[in-house]
This record gives sequence, structure tokens and C-alpha cells, in this order.
Amino acid sequence: MLGRLNHVAIAVPDIAAAAAVYRDTLGAEVSDAVPQPDHGVTTVFIILPNTKIELLEPLGENSPIAKFLERSPDGGIHHICYEVDDIIAARDKLTRDGARVLGGGEPKIGAHGKPVLFLHPKDFCGTLVELEQA
Amino acid sequence: MLGRLNHVAIAVPDIAAAAAVYRDTLGAEVSDAVPQPDHGVTTVFIILPNTKIELLEPLGENSPIAKFLERSPDGGIHHICYEVDDIIAARDKLTRDGARVLGGGEPKIGAHGKPVLFLHPKDFCGTLVELEQA
Repeated sequence: MLGRLNHVAIAVPDIAAAAAVYRDTLGAEVSDAVPQPDHGVTTVFIILPNTKIELLEPLGENSPIAKFLERSPDGGIHHICYEVDDIIAARDKLTRDGARVLGGGEPKIGAHGKPVLFLHPKDFCGTLVELEQA
Repeated sequence: MLGRLNHVAIAVPDIAAAAAVYRDTLGAEVSDAVPQPDHGVTTVFIILPNTKIELLEPLGENSPIAKFLERSPDGGIHHICYEVDDIIAARDKLTRDGARVLGGGEPKIGAHGKPVLFLHPKDFCGTLVELEQA
């Protein structure tokens, strides 16, 4: 079921500073910052040869990463996103196996324009897992 | 400088249970568990099409991940490992740029038999970064 690692998301308090660390200090290819008001974040992608890192900065008053940054003000790894071929089949299998799908279980359109689901960290080694339709 | 994402490491309290979640619930290819007494961990690799996840369980009395699991008993993402072509050149550039390399700055042989360095989380968006010679 599990396909490629689509991205690792890192929540940061200052996305311009974080992008500069990856571009200038680590010498990576870094995209422009894109405000995503529908998702409550501004995103920057670090393009690696085999996958990408997604930097996330809170945007607006109800950002889904605001609480995470209250607990970890320097930033930190927020979630990990795996691709699946069929997100509905994946959801149904996970639910049958007793894993908890967040938000009612209906896929939403994620920051990349594809259907996504988030899984409960308690069921996945303490990590927030995003599944994205490949 | 930054090359492939070599792996994402997830510290877990029970590696057999974590491996079962990835194998049975998420349907991924999972390696056998390998005790690595020199590194104070037991490792399992989740093999994805483009990279891998490294599950880590503490081994022995002075495991480097023991404190992390005290703070996060369910487990969590412990570090992220990027490949570099020349780890000495990478270290020297990072040091010139004011980033802190942990453990005195001399590469050690990591769990994959290659030279590695760890970078200070405060200088890298709150994330522990491992660099591995490609």
C-alpha cells in the first residue's frame, strides 16, 4: 500500500529564515514561498533529488500548525507524507485494522491539489502521517 | 551540497510493534530488526520506493535515544538524514557559516557503515539533522 515518501513537513516560525538556511547554509534548491490561505500555512519546498521537504509557516488566525509551534517555538518536524495509489482503499483498510483517520475520514484536497488524509499519531509511532493520492 | 534524503528516523518504544504497524497496517516492505550495540539502538528499515524510514528502539543503558523517548513515550520523528558528496567539505562550509556540528566535528561511522555528522537542531529549524557521506 505505502508508496513513495512524498515529503517531510517542517513547521517553522520564520519561513524566510528557514528557506535561507536550506538555500545558503545547506546548499539546496528552494522554491518561492507560496501563501496557502485555504490551508492556513505558507509553504516553501526544498527540492531534493529523491523527494522534498515542505517548510510550513502559520498563516492567519486558525493555522493548523499554530499549537505545534507554541510547543516547539524553534520549529520541528510536523508530519510525514506517504503516497498511496488509492486513498479510499487505503482509508478503508486502515479503518478495518483499527487505525484512526482524522477529520471524519473524508479525503480533503491538500496543498498539492490532490486528495489527502491524516492519520492519528497515537496509532503510528507518535508521528502524524499524511497519505496523499499518488 | 545537499543530496538525497537518505532516511527519516523514528524513535519507538517497541520496535516489533512499530514494524508490525508499517508491515501489516501500512503494507510496506520491512527489514528484520538488527541490534547495533555500538550505536545503542536496534534498527528496522522501512523500504519505500524512493527512500527509507529507520525505526530506532533503545538498546543498552546509554542509548542516545533514551531521553527522546522519555519526553515522547509514544515515539516520534527523531532526525532526518541527508546525503552529501564530501562530508569534510560539508562540515567545513557549515562551520564557516556559523552552524554547530555536534560531537566535536569529527565524522563517526554511522549505522550504515559510512561517515556521518549530526548538526545542532537550534541551527536547523528545530530538527536534528544527520549528514551522511553518499
